[in-house]
Amino acid sequence: MRVGIIGAGSIGLLFAACLSRIFDVTVYTRTTEQAAAINQHGVKLLQGPKETVAEVKAMPAAEWQGSEDFTIIAVKQYQLSSILEKLKHTQFIPENLLFLQNGMGHLSMLKNFKESNIFVGSVEHGALRESLNTVRQNGAGTTNVAVYKGDKKILQSFADKVKKTFPMTFQEEYLTMLEKKLIVNAMINPLTALLQVNNGELVNNPFYYKVLQKLFSEITSVLNLERPEEYWEQVIKICKKTSDNRSSMLKDIEAKRVTEVDAILGYLINEAGRKGKESPQLETLYYLIKGKESQGEEMV
Amino acid sequence: MRVGIIGAGSIGLLFAACLSRIFDVTVYTRTTEQAAAINQHGVKLLQGPKETVAEVKAMPAAEWQGSEDFTIIAVKQYQLSSILEKLKHTQFIPENLLFLQNGMGHLSMLKNFKESNIFVGSVEHGALRESLNTVRQNGAGTTNVAVYKGDKKILQSFADKVKKTFPMTFQEEYLTMLEKKLIVNAMINPLTALLQVNNGELVNNPFYYKVLQKLFSEITSVLNLERPEEYWEQVIKICKKTSDNRSSMLKDIEAKRVTEVDAILGYLINEAGRKGKESPQLETLYYLIKGKESQGEEMV
Repeated sequence: MRVGIIGAGSIGLLFAACLSRIFDVTVYTRTTEQAAAINQHGVKLLQGPKETVAEVKAMPAAEWQGSEDFTIIAVKQYQLSSILEKLKHTQFIPENLLFLQNGMGHLSMLKNFKESNIFVGSVEHGALRESLNTVRQNGAGTTNVAVYKGDKKILQSFADKVKKTFPMTFQEEYLTMLEKKLIVNAMINPLTALLQVNNGELVNNPFYYKVLQKLFSEITSVLNLERPEEYWEQVIKICKKTSDNRSSMLKDIEAKRVTEVDAILGYLINEAGRKGKESPQLETLYYLIKGKESQGEEMV
Repeated sequence: MRVGIIGAGSIGLLFAACLSRIFDVTVYTRTTEQAAAINQHGVKLLQGPKETVAEVKAMPAAEWQGSEDFTIIAVKQYQLSSILEKLKHTQFIPENLLFLQNGMGHLSMLKNFKESNIFVGSVEHGALRESLNTVRQNGAGTTNVAVYKGDKKILQSFADKVKKTFPMTFQEEYLTMLEKKLIVNAMINPLTALLQVNNGELVNNPFYYKVLQKLFSEITSVLNLERPEEYWEQVIKICKKTSDNRSSMLKDIEAKRVTEVDAILGYLINEAGRKGKESPQLETLYYLIKGKESQGEEMV
């Protein structure tokens, strides 16, 4: 089975390294330089002290034709629109597409692809790209996958094959699955980025815990959550489990990179607007993070 | 005329240095060590390159009897309750009391003093204490003073004498005067402390400007402001005028000191509660700053 992976950031490289053990994988990169590095040296995967190298084919994303049996889109949400534009004009119709973006803002873009099976995933692996062809996996997680539209059996069969070497969990409801991840991201990412603290500080500091509670109450209302306790418990569990970790948004801010705040808080603020609800805390956090992002720009 | 100044922080020392040119001033300090330093070396005032030394009497605050003709209370709002407790048990009834605290939380405490003239002030001087007996004045401002209750003529006459050597402006309405200062403090202090930026960044960064606007709208509602434009313009003017300054709350957070967040945001949140209004942004900011304060404690 031929698998295409679009995007060779931390998640794209992690999937390339792990899936190449069972599939014929081609990874599509943003730059020709990165494709060359991967073709020449393979993808190096660091797991604790363990180091493995996977032989993986790589090409610049511009050469992607959508011809693989299964395509995983592993770019950031804010890079998605250019990929989707290309998808519209490719001569092949990709059979199966799995979207791994954070947030839920990309769902509205997926409605246009009538002829493909569309799957969505939520990645719980911690991964950090250390060079053009090196990725470090931090802690063991899983990838939750669910059907957005199309053939459920194909995704189940794919997940069954994958999970022999790489954890993958089939989920029945894509909306619940993505909402859970979205809420975790919306609660932990902006606050840790703003306060420049590790994830655990949000539950260890009683005042930050209070901020979490108030923010969660606003999100609960925006999303009309029916059983909020489940979602709240998950947030707290993840803060504790990843206590010493720095969130991806904090790392983005520190490295003066663009964050995923639009995909995460932007989506929730739009939802609030659509439903005629107030979202003052989400909006304040959104503009504070956007401000921090643009401070980064000024300093470059 | 004998003037007592309670508190020898930056504002207390600035007033002691300037008022001792025209009055017989005694400054009351928290520690005997500071009183000794002031008695021995005077109060050193630094204004740009200019350095002057004023001879000032000093005593530990425990020895204060309330016997001066005019007493200025220049401690932080959170130190006020112990002073007021002492005031209740003093054998003298102080004739004239001028309170210089930030915020408006202290007003409710002032109602108990039936026999004194009670004046309130809002200090617009920038001042930084550099040693036990040295204060640096940054930029020229004024002290606005108004009657809270009692004899207006006494305060006018005091301000007239003072302003020959030290700017002091008599204001007719104490509430408007304190609200203006409170709003400036509530807008600039917590945001700069949280974001660790100079005051000017709040108006220069378009996303932070958006946060200011949304926060102002909440404050306008909490205080039922009738002509909000005036207050808004003042905030923006002060951000621009003090563009390169670091706010007092930012300095407090950086130095791991207690901030004035209770006097400022705490007051507004109480007001909202009292009036049955929502204050989600103020509360979020409040808990974020309290969390930062307590992070400081942990690190000590």
